[in-house]
Amino acid sequence: MYQTTNHPGIVSATGGVCAAKGFTAAGVCASIKPSNTTKRDLALMYSEVLCDAAAVYTQNKVKGAPILVDRLHLENGKAQAVIANSGNANTCNADGVEKANAMCKLASDVLGVAEEDVLVASTGVIGQILPIEPIEANIGKVASLLSKQGATDAAEAIMTTDTVKKEAAYTFTLGGKTCTIGGMAKGSGMIHPNMATMLCFLTTDAAVDHTVLQKALSDVVDDTFNMVSVDGDTSTNDTCLLMASGLAGNEPITEACGEAYETFKTALGVLLTTLSRGIAADGEGASKLLECVVEGAKTVKDAKILAKSVICSTLFKCAMFGKDANWGRILCAIGYAPADFDLEGVAVSLASKRGKVDVCAHGAGVPFSEETAADILEEDEIQILVQLADGDASAVAWGCDMTYDYVQINGDYRT
Amino acid sequence: MYQTTNHPGIVSATGGVCAAKGFTAAGVCASIKPSNTTKRDLALMYSEVLCDAAAVYTQNKVKGAPILVDRLHLENGKAQAVIANSGNANTCNADGVEKANAMCKLASDVLGVAEEDVLVASTGVIGQILPIEPIEANIGKVASLLSKQGATDAAEAIMTTDTVKKEAAYTFTLGGKTCTIGGMAKGSGMIHPNMATMLCFLTTDAAVDHTVLQKALSDVVDDTFNMVSVDGDTSTNDTCLLMASGLAGNEPITEACGEAYETFKTALGVLLTTLSRGIAADGEGASKLLECVVEGAKTVKDAKILAKSVICSTLFKCAMFGKDANWGRILCAIGYAPADFDLEGVAVSLASKRGKVDVCAHGAGVPFSEETAADILEEDEIQILVQLADGDASAVAWGCDMTYDYVQINGDYRT
Repeated sequence: MYQTTNHPGIVSATGGVCAAKGFTAAGVCASIKPSNTTKRDLALMYSEVLCDAAAVYTQNKVKGAPILVDRLHLENGKAQAVIANSGNANTCNADGVEKANAMCKLASDVLGVAEEDVLVASTGVIGQILPIEPIEANIGKVASLLSKQGATDAAEAIMTTDTVKKEAAYTFTLGGKTCTIGGMAKGSGMIHPNMATMLCFLTTDAAVDHTVLQKALSDVVDDTFNMVSVDGDTSTNDTCLLMASGLAGNEPITEACGEAYETFKTALGVLLTTLSRGIAADGEGASKLLECVVEGAKTVKDAKILAKSVICSTLFKCAMFGKDANWGRILCAIGYAPADFDLEGVAVSLASKRGKVDVCAHGAGVPFSEETAADILEEDEIQILVQLADGDASAVAWGCDMTYDYVQINGDYRT
Repeated sequence: MYQTTNHPGIVSATGGVCAAKGFTAAGVCASIKPSNTTKRDLALMYSEVLCDAAAVYTQNKVKGAPILVDRLHLENGKAQAVIANSGNANTCNADGVEKANAMCKLASDVLGVAEEDVLVASTGVIGQILPIEPIEANIGKVASLLSKQGATDAAEAIMTTDTVKKEAAYTFTLGGKTCTIGGMAKGSGMIHPNMATMLCFLTTDAAVDHTVLQKALSDVVDDTFNMVSVDGDTSTNDTCLLMASGLAGNEPITEACGEAYETFKTALGVLLTTLSRGIAADGEGASKLLECVVEGAKTVKDAKILAKSVICSTLFKCAMFGKDANWGRILCAIGYAPADFDLEGVAVSLASKRGKVDVCAHGAGVPFSEETAADILEEDEIQILVQLADGDASAVAWGCDMTYDYVQINGDYRT
């Protein structure tokens, strides 16, 4: 469990995916969906040096074509640029890999980077042929706009139904050298463990060997993106890429242990916790961020399963939208989760900035003021605390409420 | 896979839970929720002879108190009466078992039936103390109304957010004797395998030993109620009870094999398929029944997992509400299901009374008319056909679309 504050030496910074030394980015409107003539939908990220790189992808057996290409390009653990588009997922298309390769080739040509050092990502509707012409027509423009300030435009270019850009960055110190890690993500719908992000691009100037980078990324994603659910649907295109330029000048981290590794991993954890919360809060149609903390579980695995079950319950999500402290649905959700716990030891509280109310103890209801509860649930960030009496393991999961807007957005997504 | 037609010798009948010889029922308004002054909410079912009986309960670890009592009362495989209420689930209450026992005692006293031959069920809000007084005050009245015609009143009395009564009955022949099997169910929300019904009460006049009855019920529920999902939330109170009076005069079925057993099991399968479809079609807020048929799977288990994954996908459910042939979400849903299949062999069609449209072949999109698809999706019963090339196993699952009304109903359930 990482927090977004209270980690000494890990300090919030600005600059998103370009905060770390060596990285520039840009985003332009290429009209990949012909109906889109204003929103940026083509992003380019570039490192001035070849980076160590790592990635985590969706566990959906139906995978977007860009993932098949990235897996090959990352076999050597190196990358220098990323090209990404929204408006089309390039998934379930007979020519998907061909188009994903064409995107890499376009970026390779314009940047003078080897094709296998370019990574690619796409997000949007599944099963429609990706038009390459808008990307061809705009690759020169997006490359010419690469800059430190371009991070925000790139963050916009990867958005689909997201309503806010999700960017974050942090600084930390390794052996006296100030290092930076930053990134951007897009989420919104089709968000479910494993893994709970559509696209996430991370950069750091810390020097970290790619095998170590991969271990840190996989471990941290397990505690962060894999603990987010918006709607229970695991996307076909989920991709989280991490590139390390090494330009901070720290002694390279070559083993997944020791103080420097732990510091780097914690900074990565704080960054991904921030982005995870951002994805959950901006879930499709969401009006509330839900954070479920399970404590006192027998194992971390049990705690994670229970926390996720609560934030995935459609019924509980609706209750939160209605500001209704219907805690029976929390008990129901932990009851059907495949995890072990003693019902007699279950206590549940609901909390927000306005206070906290205990609703259940020893597995049964306790009297509480519905007015106080309704007041607490007015806030747009709600914490659900599930206290067990089975051990000392804990976990946190993030989700959002289920609203009319979610139904509206997804009842008519393609038009 | 049972069908609701095309089983020779199994003929639709009227009379619901009282269709079989020996059974009467009644339902009255007891105002178990003080705000309810009109809707029937207390049901009583009675058999003139002691029955062989079987039951299947929720797999949620948090179980309603009535289930704990029924398990004890069914240890001998016999029952003669059922008392049931809506408006309160009697779950997660410190005095739950005491109240469930009190309900059995009230029915036992008024009917002159041994307390352990009475079964009990409750449905409604979780975690609120069940008031016994309204039941005490109305037990005499509901008992006095027991009749063959009371089936429909009983079916109303178990409804919560259901909008229609779910009753069905069928006749069949065993060794020249005409037998009847009938029942009623309530579903609506918190409906998910295992098992996908809130409450279901079944009666037959066929003579079937209770161990055989249990085997048939468990097997058939696996192919029917366990293939229904409205919202992915497995209720705490799901209970399906089956009582066999033996009054049809057939030679008792004492083994789970042979022609008579197969005929009985098929009749039970047809009945539960009808009730399953009814529960899915009347899911909370639903405007459409969704039926997903998976064929060509490697195993029945794979076929079931894939069919359920499609009808559970919140995104796909929204698309159906929006009459949007967004088949990429079907591919996404089978892709994240824990089942084995070859993507290259996947074909998908959407069908209704108005026709059929192929949308995917060999795992990729095929050109189709959006107009034709939209027309097909106008109907209130949609079939999703997923054809695999992995084997010859098949399965069917039922669900419903996700609508504004679902959110509205569940955003404000307790008030």
